[in-house]
Amino acid sequence: MNAFQDDLKYYQQAVNDRMFEFVNKYINPGRVRDAILHSIDAGGKRVRPILLLSTIEAFGADYTRGYAAACAIEMVHTYSLIHDDLPAMDDDDLRRGQPTIHKAFDEATAILAGDALLTLSFQVITEDPSLTSDEKVFLIRELSRASGGSGMVDGQMKDMLSEGKRVVLDELKSIHMNKTGQLLSFSIIAGAFLSHSSTQTFKKMEKMANVLGLIFQIQDDILDVLGDANAIGKPVGSDEGNEKSTYPQLLGVEGAIREMNEYVDIALQSLEKAELNHTFLAALIDFLSTRDR
Amino acid sequence: MNAFQDDLKYYQQAVNDRMFEFVNKYINPGRVRDAILHSIDAGGKRVRPILLLSTIEAFGADYTRGYAAACAIEMVHTYSLIHDDLPAMDDDDLRRGQPTIHKAFDEATAILAGDALLTLSFQVITEDPSLTSDEKVFLIRELSRASGGSGMVDGQMKDMLSEGKRVVLDELKSIHMNKTGQLLSFSIIAGAFLSHSSTQTFKKMEKMANVLGLIFQIQDDILDVLGDANAIGKPVGSDEGNEKSTYPQLLGVEGAIREMNEYVDIALQSLEKAELNHTFLAALIDFLSTRDR
Repeated sequence: MNAFQDDLKYYQQAVNDRMFEFVNKYINPGRVRDAILHSIDAGGKRVRPILLLSTIEAFGADYTRGYAAACAIEMVHTYSLIHDDLPAMDDDDLRRGQPTIHKAFDEATAILAGDALLTLSFQVITEDPSLTSDEKVFLIRELSRASGGSGMVDGQMKDMLSEGKRVVLDELKSIHMNKTGQLLSFSIIAGAFLSHSSTQTFKKMEKMANVLGLIFQIQDDILDVLGDANAIGKPVGSDEGNEKSTYPQLLGVEGAIREMNEYVDIALQSLEKAELNHTFLAALIDFLSTRDR
Repeated sequence: MNAFQDDLKYYQQAVNDRMFEFVNKYINPGRVRDAILHSIDAGGKRVRPILLLSTIEAFGADYTRGYAAACAIEMVHTYSLIHDDLPAMDDDDLRRGQPTIHKAFDEATAILAGDALLTLSFQVITEDPSLTSDEKVFLIRELSRASGGSGMVDGQMKDMLSEGKRVVLDELKSIHMNKTGQLLSFSIIAGAFLSHSSTQTFKKMEKMANVLGLIFQIQDDILDVLGDANAIGKPVGSDEGNEKSTYPQLLGVEGAIREMNEYVDIALQSLEKAELNHTFLAALIDFLSTRDR
């Protein structure tokens, strides 16, 4: 295992430990807590919290001050998967190779577990003793903007409404920017903010953050065409079955790969211009654009 | 119309106006926003925000500083109704005499509209220019504690799990304290906090707040037995149909009324001991315990 893989595992473990700690501390014992622990236990790459923590580390600041925000963003991501998997939405039985919450428990529990996780994401930021009130307010404001009705939820609704319809590339980009991009951007922006970065550096990191969501989504679309169902943990070809517009469908697989690589170049260039130790972050971008699940 | 009714209408209008303003400002145009506006448009007593605003007014402080928190709590309440009405939960087709969101739109939209409203509840507090960061953090922390997996969501899950089972009175109280009580308490506590009340007065208001949830819930249970379906806007007798344990079932209707009146006395006594202009609040408690819907 190389240094990047070591660091990745280290961050993943740190995030998982805190997630379990927060859930056991702030969610009452019972069925909702069990369902949430099941969904955390199913694993996941923890891309968003790792982006946040490694951004702070890249600035040479104390990344443990990012734990609450890192877990908050992973909680928002996890709640959105629990709700998206529901029969009324994507109707998925498997997630990360495990039965989805409404399969392992039931629909009502899945709805409530998602609601509790979303609520907890804001709570854990307020409960952190290492952050100032100004920092907490900034994090909660940016996280709610990125994840609510002008961010992730808006993108999810518009993604569903676009099924079976022909959408143009700009529309697809705008949907993904809201559905996936804003939350990934939040990770970088929150990390730079907690590191007290200069305005100039902050702007470069913002630019990097903006294209990251597109890189991530295009690779998701490509994996749905070319990927290995076992590695991904859910069936491939589901986008085609759902008649979803995707990058490979609009640009062809090769065109989609080319488009993604252009974004990777933009991200790496922005990163190099920002004055920080970018080794891990550059490797993470490479990892995201070449991952097989 | 008496002075109390006038004040009630005034507060309701002020809350509705701000709710619409916040939703139009912070939720992107489209189906999610339309669904949220539909649910706000269906009306409601706005008990929670009015408790908050009138508590501030009772202290002689500027109640407009409570608008964000007041709307936040009503958003949490409204999201919980949207999700509770879903087929997987209570499966209700009518709410406040109007089709529920999953009937007027569809299930996916109801899930997403609830998620967006919950997220917005925290966002509007962060966006308010009249509150300090310390005040925002206090409000968000208390609201998330009251509404998440150690508050409202926990109560809702345990209420569902108790269906068809015999529960004892203490258990029923604990379920309702979480399901309804904590959010009502938050209204009073947030109002007292924003008024910079003394610790002593705060404690008396807290005591009043604690019994308010029980008063509210017992009257809800009584209305389900004795109420008029047209006034309530949903079918009566649904608790019996769902095999839910209720106060009238455990204590008889007269016993439940007696229990509620004892709590009303406690609430009014605590209120009188707190040094504030309690005319409206006392009338509000009377209104809550004698309401017909």
